[in-house]
Amino acid sequence: MRYELYYWPSIQGRGEFVRLALEDASADYVDVARLPARKGMGTPAMMRLLEGESAACPPFAPPFLRVAGTKQVIFQTANILLFLGPRLGLVQKSEAGRLSAHQLQLTIADWLTEVHDTHHPIGGGLYYEEQKREAKRRSANFCAERLPKFLGYFENIIAGNPRWNGGLAGRATSYVDLSIFQMIAGLRYAFPRTMARLEVEHPRLVALHQRIAARPRIAAYLASKRRIPFNQSGIFRHYPELDVAG
Amino acid sequence: MRYELYYWPSIQGRGEFVRLALEDASADYVDVARLPARKGMGTPAMMRLLEGESAACPPFAPPFLRVAGTKQVIFQTANILLFLGPRLGLVQKSEAGRLSAHQLQLTIADWLTEVHDTHHPIGGGLYYEEQKREAKRRSANFCAERLPKFLGYFENIIAGNPRWNGGLAGRATSYVDLSIFQMIAGLRYAFPRTMARLEVEHPRLVALHQRIAARPRIAAYLASKRRIPFNQSGIFRHYPELDVAG
Repeated sequence: MRYELYYWPSIQGRGEFVRLALEDASADYVDVARLPARKGMGTPAMMRLLEGESAACPPFAPPFLRVAGTKQVIFQTANILLFLGPRLGLVQKSEAGRLSAHQLQLTIADWLTEVHDTHHPIGGGLYYEEQKREAKRRSANFCAERLPKFLGYFENIIAGNPRWNGGLAGRATSYVDLSIFQMIAGLRYAFPRTMARLEVEHPRLVALHQRIAARPRIAAYLASKRRIPFNQSGIFRHYPELDVAG
Repeated sequence: MRYELYYWPSIQGRGEFVRLALEDASADYVDVARLPARKGMGTPAMMRLLEGESAACPPFAPPFLRVAGTKQVIFQTANILLFLGPRLGLVQKSEAGRLSAHQLQLTIADWLTEVHDTHHPIGGGLYYEEQKREAKRRSANFCAERLPKFLGYFENIIAGNPRWNGGLAGRATSYVDLSIFQMIAGLRYAFPRTMARLEVEHPRLVALHQRIAARPRIAAYLASKRRIPFNQSGIFRHYPELDVAG
């Protein structure tokens, strides 16, 4: 089974949470928008689906996924992982296990939106420079209140998982663990000073990030050109003036 | 089967999307935090679960749901509806149908977060009065850019649904339709002037809102004391100074 992933070609963004799952499972997939437009791929192919050319239920925004040869377009990052999880062996098979992983993934999605809004608190269609003053206030609140709350929550989930010492959901590595890896990596890029201070209090999250990074397929992916570097167009952005908590 | 819903007792908030599904299905449920604390219910009962007293995976925030007599706590509004949908007959049974409804529900969840942030663009822990200036900017952007985008998207989904003329997902009324009812009702409360202008261009959403409001169990619920009125502590709030688009 071949998967077609559709996401903006120049940023990690929300697509990265799906890429990590596909890479860890060594799945057969194509990253459509990063392939040549002259071969019918590229951003134009993504835009055609986004504009609803062939789907009864077109996506609101990238990322979205299609199983090659089928019509259904699956969108919303957490929904894509809900679909892929059992197929890639990255979640428990029981309904209870899938719901439990999914609610953690949705909480990560909320967290990621808050990260985005640290640099875009007024509107995604405006430049950062047009909302810099508000971004400073929102980031200060994020670093002082929200970031510790999210980190503390997930640290406790690891501590309380009776099934497996060190992961978030179930006995084995799940897509939620891969997503937490991405959150820690991104937060280190965006808020290095704040994270250096907070990581000391969250050793389980640090250890989980390290273990995911060392998984052979993830390590190979991170070292490859398929991994787009963090940059100032993505969701995680490094503006030193925003990294100023406490 | 009896469901226990846990949510803040004095606002509609995110809990209302679950209440509407339970009410429409005439499900056997208790709204735990609205019952007396002296009987072991009330907000204290909710706080005990929120603080992880008995769950391996405690919720990040209300709402959450438990099937009476079981241990698993299901949280994140859209995840609760993913769980309840097939059990209440409010979604198609096929995996494709469930995923399709869920991705629309997740898009509604994103939309709702943006509504919340119109009055709290800096931080949920600060008073509105402490972020009023930023709220004016964010609301102007929301009313001019984001609200038309979301309304247009869902209007098109109704138009494109080949299965049923007038609903969002599948042939019959789904929990997504109930949630869109709530969005339209809340937006009318919060942004009456902007909505009066925009509704003209979105007749299918207006018709869907009207049809849901007329469903006998929903009509009975809306007329009952179980329906908490909109108020200035909820997610939808009416601040005239924020209702000023274009």
